[in-house]
Amino acid sequence: MSEKKAIVLLSGGLDSAVTLAYAIKQGFCCYALSFDYGQRHKIELKRAKKIATTLGAQVHKVVAVDLRSFGGSALTADIPVPAAREQIGEQEQIPATYVPARNTVFLSLALAWAEVVHAEAIFIGANSVDYSGYPDCRPEYLEAYEKLAGLATKAGTSEQWQLKIAAPLLRMTKADIVKLGKELELDFSLTSSCYNPQQDGTPCRNCEACLLRAKGFAEANEIDTTIP
Amino acid sequence: MSEKKAIVLLSGGLDSAVTLAYAIKQGFCCYALSFDYGQRHKIELKRAKKIATTLGAQVHKVVAVDLRSFGGSALTADIPVPAAREQIGEQEQIPATYVPARNTVFLSLALAWAEVVHAEAIFIGANSVDYSGYPDCRPEYLEAYEKLAGLATKAGTSEQWQLKIAAPLLRMTKADIVKLGKELELDFSLTSSCYNPQQDGTPCRNCEACLLRAKGFAEANEIDTTIP
Repeated sequence: MSEKKAIVLLSGGLDSAVTLAYAIKQGFCCYALSFDYGQRHKIELKRAKKIATTLGAQVHKVVAVDLRSFGGSALTADIPVPAAREQIGEQEQIPATYVPARNTVFLSLALAWAEVVHAEAIFIGANSVDYSGYPDCRPEYLEAYEKLAGLATKAGTSEQWQLKIAAPLLRMTKADIVKLGKELELDFSLTSSCYNPQQDGTPCRNCEACLLRAKGFAEANEIDTTIP
Repeated sequence: MSEKKAIVLLSGGLDSAVTLAYAIKQGFCCYALSFDYGQRHKIELKRAKKIATTLGAQVHKVVAVDLRSFGGSALTADIPVPAAREQIGEQEQIPATYVPARNTVFLSLALAWAEVVHAEAIFIGANSVDYSGYPDCRPEYLEAYEKLAGLATKAGTSEQWQLKIAAPLLRMTKADIVKLGKELELDFSLTSSCYNPQQDGTPCRNCEACLLRAKGFAEANEIDTTIP
């Protein structure tokens, strides 16, 4: 077993599954981390568990954190999930599906675990190309987080532990992500991207996440095995 | 009611209570935030509630976040709380009571709330003088966090909302904090600092937090009304 450890944020969606496959391929012993944060698309937690097992994560943890108590998002509060906007990738506005400070909260919990197990890296499937305009997916945000992580932890007071925030998909298009997933032999049917799925996990095909995913598969000339 | 809003991290201890009193005095409409994070000294949550009500916070929220699932600290795992070390304030080592990434997790959840209610500031009772050597209480850490907060949120994409991380006690001695609390007419008996209290809240008087508190009151020539 490799001694190189990484925490991998695993939502159960396409991007985080590709990220986990990538980290494993890089030789990391992976500690997959998912969150039960009051999201309406809770099906993704089941998918995350299955992905972690199938891909060979060392361990998979689901941590409860009640983001619903703050509200403010269509994903956690009683605000409808909007249909995808017309100009995907060209929006000026932050959409209603943005969960306030979500990546910051998730990275912070990953940081706590990273410090306990002495992980070298936290992998996050953030993407700044075919994404939804969330501020906490931008390169400058992730750089600031890496700096903070050094100061926040024992790493900041010793030279013996350095932590990297790794976002291998950051500058990829959704099509590139699909291609990378294919190359890493990821079974796409394990993943769930939809913000507003039916009870059985069937995607709505109407939300932003569904449309971005469809666009990625189309451009990569791949078939999305999730959709029957 | 003031329109200037602040999130105030409120543990129920002396420092955070003084911080809340200070923020209220500064004219902020205060949203007090406490965490049920699996801490062994859960009595502090009862104290926090009482402090928030007594001091006049606009609202008090207790958010559950399971830091216990990561372990790694005497405050959340089955590791004994150590007696205070001899050289308080001069330690080289990070103590066993350090909870990995705790302030980062707490600030991140405060950030989520701040974004939802459009708060101007997050107040934290961090202190870098008479403290326990925790890396996430240092000025450079808090500066890095403020920078991150701007990038993490809608603030980072607009000029209309700026968020400040306010740590008014940062450079005070514990004696200064006691004096400030006195000046702000804080009822010290409401607060609980002990890491290892008895069931009824009686402090152990042996842990680091108890000793730092006692030292502060002694140096400020004030009586700690918590201790019978």
